[in-house]
Amino acid sequence: METREIIIDLLGSDLGPQEMLEGARLVLEDFPDVNVVLAGPRDLIEAAGLPEGRYRILEANRTVTNLDNPIEAFYSKEPVSVFRALEEAGSCSSVIGVINAGNTGALFAGAIRFLLADRDVRPCIAAILPTTKGGFTCLVDTGASIDCGAQQLVQFAHQGTDLMRKLYKLESPRVGLLSNGAEPTKGNKLVKEAHGLLSREEGINFIGNIEGNKTLSGECDVLVCEGFAGNQVLKNSEGMAVNLITEIIKYGKTHNVPAAMEIAGYLMSRFDFASLGAGIMLGTRKVVVKSRGSCKRTAIRNAAQILINLADDKTIYESID
Amino acid sequence: METREIIIDLLGSDLGPQEMLEGARLVLEDFPDVNVVLAGPRDLIEAAGLPEGRYRILEANRTVTNLDNPIEAFYSKEPVSVFRALEEAGSCSSVIGVINAGNTGALFAGAIRFLLADRDVRPCIAAILPTTKGGFTCLVDTGASIDCGAQQLVQFAHQGTDLMRKLYKLESPRVGLLSNGAEPTKGNKLVKEAHGLLSREEGINFIGNIEGNKTLSGECDVLVCEGFAGNQVLKNSEGMAVNLITEIIKYGKTHNVPAAMEIAGYLMSRFDFASLGAGIMLGTRKVVVKSRGSCKRTAIRNAAQILINLADDKTIYESID
Repeated sequence: METREIIIDLLGSDLGPQEMLEGARLVLEDFPDVNVVLAGPRDLIEAAGLPEGRYRILEANRTVTNLDNPIEAFYSKEPVSVFRALEEAGSCSSVIGVINAGNTGALFAGAIRFLLADRDVRPCIAAILPTTKGGFTCLVDTGASIDCGAQQLVQFAHQGTDLMRKLYKLESPRVGLLSNGAEPTKGNKLVKEAHGLLSREEGINFIGNIEGNKTLSGECDVLVCEGFAGNQVLKNSEGMAVNLITEIIKYGKTHNVPAAMEIAGYLMSRFDFASLGAGIMLGTRKVVVKSRGSCKRTAIRNAAQILINLADDKTIYESID
Repeated sequence: METREIIIDLLGSDLGPQEMLEGARLVLEDFPDVNVVLAGPRDLIEAAGLPEGRYRILEANRTVTNLDNPIEAFYSKEPVSVFRALEEAGSCSSVIGVINAGNTGALFAGAIRFLLADRDVRPCIAAILPTTKGGFTCLVDTGASIDCGAQQLVQFAHQGTDLMRKLYKLESPRVGLLSNGAEPTKGNKLVKEAHGLLSREEGINFIGNIEGNKTLSGECDVLVCEGFAGNQVLKNSEGMAVNLITEIIKYGKTHNVPAAMEIAGYLMSRFDFASLGAGIMLGTRKVVVKSRGSCKRTAIRNAAQILINLADDKTIYESID
């Protein structure tokens, strides 16, 4: 069997290619059966001193920043790392997936061009988030499809259902629709229309609207929303977790409560959004994991674990309790 | 000087009129200079044994539930408590404001009919939320204006600016726009359009986009968003605070860490969304406070405190640190 490869796009993350390279080093250390393909500047990669025979290079010096137009970059003559990575994933059988921490729009455009599984289904980006019941909810979409239509929300419901069925062996994943109230009459125009469609859709176990304070309550296995709202849920959940943990540490210091550090540490592992917040692209022929722009080397290592588990149809995280 | 009155709409809350009546009792106990006007069923109110001379009754047996059509209820022949409350507030000089915990759409429709401050400006519902820097951010809109346009977001920016200037004596409140990325190119169609308008708007200290993980970071004094997104921010922040506090208590029990209760108690007071999440209607001639549907009696008492402070142009909450 040929060695399986993971492509890591070194460019586009907030902390720069060196941090991504250190992430690649951790991947090679922790997964001896997997090699990496590094998309980025050749000189940087060669200077990193990674173990010989464990990596190959896709040379590319250009990236797409959040200020660039992804479509314009797409037609650039200079090789762009994210597009090289996705093209290679599409054409090379040993590659099991791609890790990227750059511009979402560029990743999305490239995935549609090189990795689409079904010509009629747009991909989306899901996240698997920890619920208070100890399990996980698949939030979809988390920001790739902004201003999308009701039919697309139905598509997200199917994509999320497939994922949770595959990963967690759920027979009939419960699908909730993010809204501003539990009643079917609540919602913006898009949500009201999607509510009607989901209620009639076959193959979907639709349980109705879910309010913002119940997103991580474990009431549904798949939480469907348009990308702008999903991005708010993901980032707001993360932001609040960070806020409360910071408050606990401050309180522990000012009130001399040593146990505060222990509790903060526990919460940090339980609500580890740096890794948990990683986006999983659905609807592609290979696994694509979208790490946060600010991700550190350990998050890249964790993204590789997610990617390998997905490629093997294994659960990404273990349930708690 | 005539005694100032607060109208409390007894109907429409999740816990029923008895809990609202107990809230009214706390208001009368804690604010001896203020009387209450109770909108609801006469027999219930008379049976409550509230102090004589401290209350009067607006008889109304009908409410608007979340399953009703607010507009239809508006033309009902039977008196509806929320409309009676708002009409009385509009016509009676001794009334300083209204507290309601029922259907937002009905409250909104009634406020437009009876209490509009400026015929050309739609009201909105703001919330004052605690930031990690110890101050407060005014989130506007929190769910009254769903599917609104970019011009309305500009209006929210003005309304929030006026409120924070008045309450916290800020000379030039910093206005942020909720988006899915910090860069001006990020956002849905509405947010991109609003970004352009806000950048050019006079009288607004616009500081750009704010991402979902920074909503309570204290980077802005006013956070502008469309009602559906604002509702997510409000409820998601609350939900995550509840989730983490619940985890802390569980951890304290299973790992025998008594300090966990102390820390949970501190966080509950610091991120007290039951009271802090109260909606404040902007753009009305009298103060209207929208309590959460699930609010308990103490939240009604706290809503009265907010209402009195607003009527007196005083800060609602004191800054921390």
